[in-house]
Amino acid sequence: MSTPSWQEQVADKRRRLQEAIPKEWLITPPPDDKLYRMDIPETCGILTSRELEITNTADVAVLLQKLATSEWSSVEVTTAFCKRAIIAHQLVNCLAEVFFDRALRRAAELDEYLVQHGTVIGPLHGLPISLKDQFPIKGLETTMGYAAWIGKFATEDAALVQLLDECGAILYVRTNVPQTLMWAETYNNVFGRTMHPHNINYTSGGSSGGESALIALHGSLLGAGSDIGGSIRIPSHFCGVFGFKPSCYRLPSYGIVNSLDGQETIPTSIGPMSASLSGIKVFMQAILSRQPWRKDPNTIRAPWDQDAYALKEHGNGQKLCFGILWNDGIMIPQPPIRRALEEVKRALEQAGHTCIDWIPLKHGELVANARSIWLSDGGADYKEALVSGEHLINSMNPDADPLDVPVFRRPRDPLSSFQVWKLSKERRKLRKAYLDQWESTKAVTGTGRPIDALICPAAPYPAVRHGQTRSSFYTIPWNTLNYPSLVIPVTKVVPSLDTKPERHEFLSVDDEAVYNMYDSERCSGLPVGLQLIGQAYQEEVVLAIGEIVTEALRAKST
Amino acid sequence: MSTPSWQEQVADKRRRLQEAIPKEWLITPPPDDKLYRMDIPETCGILTSRELEITNTADVAVLLQKLATSEWSSVEVTTAFCKRAIIAHQLVNCLAEVFFDRALRRAAELDEYLVQHGTVIGPLHGLPISLKDQFPIKGLETTMGYAAWIGKFATEDAALVQLLDECGAILYVRTNVPQTLMWAETYNNVFGRTMHPHNINYTSGGSSGGESALIALHGSLLGAGSDIGGSIRIPSHFCGVFGFKPSCYRLPSYGIVNSLDGQETIPTSIGPMSASLSGIKVFMQAILSRQPWRKDPNTIRAPWDQDAYALKEHGNGQKLCFGILWNDGIMIPQPPIRRALEEVKRALEQAGHTCIDWIPLKHGELVANARSIWLSDGGADYKEALVSGEHLINSMNPDADPLDVPVFRRPRDPLSSFQVWKLSKERRKLRKAYLDQWESTKAVTGTGRPIDALICPAAPYPAVRHGQTRSSFYTIPWNTLNYPSLVIPVTKVVPSLDTKPERHEFLSVDDEAVYNMYDSERCSGLPVGLQLIGQAYQEEVVLAIGEIVTEALRAKST
Repeated sequence: MSTPSWQEQVADKRRRLQEAIPKEWLITPPPDDKLYRMDIPETCGILTSRELEITNTADVAVLLQKLATSEWSSVEVTTAFCKRAIIAHQLVNCLAEVFFDRALRRAAELDEYLVQHGTVIGPLHGLPISLKDQFPIKGLETTMGYAAWIGKFATEDAALVQLLDECGAILYVRTNVPQTLMWAETYNNVFGRTMHPHNINYTSGGSSGGESALIALHGSLLGAGSDIGGSIRIPSHFCGVFGFKPSCYRLPSYGIVNSLDGQETIPTSIGPMSASLSGIKVFMQAILSRQPWRKDPNTIRAPWDQDAYALKEHGNGQKLCFGILWNDGIMIPQPPIRRALEEVKRALEQAGHTCIDWIPLKHGELVANARSIWLSDGGADYKEALVSGEHLINSMNPDADPLDVPVFRRPRDPLSSFQVWKLSKERRKLRKAYLDQWESTKAVTGTGRPIDALICPAAPYPAVRHGQTRSSFYTIPWNTLNYPSLVIPVTKVVPSLDTKPERHEFLSVDDEAVYNMYDSERCSGLPVGLQLIGQAYQEEVVLAIGEIVTEALRAKST
Repeated sequence: MSTPSWQEQVADKRRRLQEAIPKEWLITPPPDDKLYRMDIPETCGILTSRELEITNTADVAVLLQKLATSEWSSVEVTTAFCKRAIIAHQLVNCLAEVFFDRALRRAAELDEYLVQHGTVIGPLHGLPISLKDQFPIKGLETTMGYAAWIGKFATEDAALVQLLDECGAILYVRTNVPQTLMWAETYNNVFGRTMHPHNINYTSGGSSGGESALIALHGSLLGAGSDIGGSIRIPSHFCGVFGFKPSCYRLPSYGIVNSLDGQETIPTSIGPMSASLSGIKVFMQAILSRQPWRKDPNTIRAPWDQDAYALKEHGNGQKLCFGILWNDGIMIPQPPIRRALEEVKRALEQAGHTCIDWIPLKHGELVANARSIWLSDGGADYKEALVSGEHLINSMNPDADPLDVPVFRRPRDPLSSFQVWKLSKERRKLRKAYLDQWESTKAVTGTGRPIDALICPAAPYPAVRHGQTRSSFYTIPWNTLNYPSLVIPVTKVVPSLDTKPERHEFLSVDDEAVYNMYDSERCSGLPVGLQLIGQAYQEEVVLAIGEIVTEALRAKST
């Protein structure tokens, strides 16, 4: 018997994914020119009104409450999200793995448990949670978009999977990623391309772009992603959901599959993405309540810090002072991003807070340092995963010649260990300079403290057409610095407000390209999020201030 | 004018060091055959009885109390330790830098502050603290034993120096280290060799071997060292002092000079060494109280945790269960080490605690992994520091041919960044296996918890003759695992108790060498310490349990 080709393996994997979908959940495929797909889950007729009510409950805390009080059973909630996830998948191709049987079995167990014990099994009791295709589950494949990984069935759960299970979460789907993960878009040779639910010609972002598309369509309200340079934050911003990149090693990564695995100088952070900020918070609290350091030796022993969350070192949340980064000195954000910053500033000021301008410090160097470290293997990591004969994807542009290797994708010469030590020293200096600048704001905030948090674009644009993302200059610096960052949805593109200004001078080639790319009509209605950033290990502070920002925005809009 | 040779630079540096010593503190050099020197500070006639009383106050908390209540002024305390440090230096050659003028100036300032404000300036008010020769102080050289670094005057204080200063500590000396730091003995071409105060033919350990000798002689009661593979713990054990290696990035290392700088896979930990456990504790509390993460971007945001110190997750310190590692499967410890383990076990059981045997898990692999990572530069880091023409030291044995390169010192081939990623993955697996084994003891401790701490030799021998230390198999695993480790002085070699058993079978070449090396008469009276080890980031737990162990030993001996 000959070994099947990688194309045959992919065909088989796709067939198995397709077969796992109950036939009665198949919808009539929308026409290709139906670009906007956000409305279809409600109109396709697959979901009952109760299932719509359940899946439209964006506030995860409310949903958990209804589960805990048996108002909704986990089986019906899980069924609703399984169905809606499948609808979403048919609209934007966001799933890589589905395992509804075990999800519904577990949901039934938890319903039974609640009846018998009168109490929940854990803080996520009965809640369906989606996972990026990086978190192995015993007995299932985790292909992470690589043909060569088809047929590799996990013998163990990733640490996060174990903890979510202990917390009572229902795992039911895993979501699509880009090949190699090192893209801000989502496309691979196994599952193909994930599309933006507001406009399928646009990307949902990446690398956690299956998650962002799924959550935007409410095929999930809460999921787990990962972020080494923006992979949670860019898709969250593009798709209008909340996304949180904690400091590294705050949440457990043991047992995941990954790109650049073993690279620990600027490592991957695990974090949640959600339709609501309450989802982000319950995820963090739930996992930290289970002492993840008992399962993952690299996770820092840092339980949820209620004092930090109460903003005890930040005036109890009264009269905060924010830094606002209007642009990074490399690319001027497009008009809707600028307006989002202005709206947040106005909302915060109306709520009694103050804002000062934040001068970007060496953002180009912060990005260059990270890229040098990530690429220091000279492409060896990718090569090890491309043993099936599958080709390395050189462009996210559907129209690109697949054999043409653009300059920025050409592998760099591998570095020696000693060269990486030099880069670590450089990174340390950059971190120190940034920290010192942050601390020095104490002299100008008027609060007696340095700024309490930074507000910053997540990208210089809202979602772009497939293949049009640029280097992630607005997200990578916070990985180099190890600062936690929360993406908060702020607004949507409104052509009448977000008109294109005349500009003839540009900061860089990228800046000019970003300017030229903008067309207010074509991106009308696309979501715009911003990053809220704290100092290293200030996860609780960032989440608490995130609630203040969200509330200020809500108060302003009402 | 021609550039001076490295030998000329060394001669000049030694001359300047010598000139900084007040003539009236010079003692008649003891004869070379006066091997034991612990008695000389008391008998040499340099110290007044009050200075002896001050410097014999091993309990740092007591000394701080007397400073805070003005019973002793900082000027007189500082003078006493300056004098005793100089006596110690003449006995065992432990100093690399002295700066008494600025120390006494600062002491006078603090005395004045106390008079004026009626309160201390910080938790270390007026206390002289010694520093390993790695912590730059503005305006001073930090040679770290390299000739090429003579004449490089720091333009900034290391973060730890700034924090110690803020806490009210008096910095007055820096202590000797081995060239490259990567030795468990202390010898370099600039300052020569540091000797063991109990027997000058023996090593005081390394790389913080200047500190351990100085503290043993009470030329300091509290100092700062660093530890990448045992460099705090081995000298502490050899010299009979307390030494603490925290988890990495718990104390600030920003601004230090270092070997293998930029290597962050298994990094250097900064930690205290002291004549008393109270010294270790006040050091940790003082630095953590100053929010070191505001000065060092790599320091984890983890303040002193009083709940952890109260052992809330360890039965409030009642009925603890300890694991005891009798040997690591590679080298059987010499008889006095074995007896120390037995004595601790007996003392703990008498105090109502229990002990179980700890099976060493892959200690050889843990050591091999660390060494592969540290040596992955192929010696490039050392080469950069040896630009003066100074030779690389190949042996700590005074009788070795300096040109002969022993096998274990031959540089390895440099590794690529990708190869280091593989080593990081291996390290992660080793950490996971160790964590799982630790957690699995929950089933056998009888406490409902896993073991609360581990007791382990710090080396398979007490101090050895110069040039006789072997690879640091008993300390390196805890660096690979990132577990905090406290060295507690337990006993001294007693020939009548520590007789050499007959042995004809050996675990390894090292094991046989360690066995053959032992001579109970020759090492009579040498101190023996043990390591007390907790899981990663359990600094407070280890210190609290350290107090329990110390108290149990005291209760047993009285």
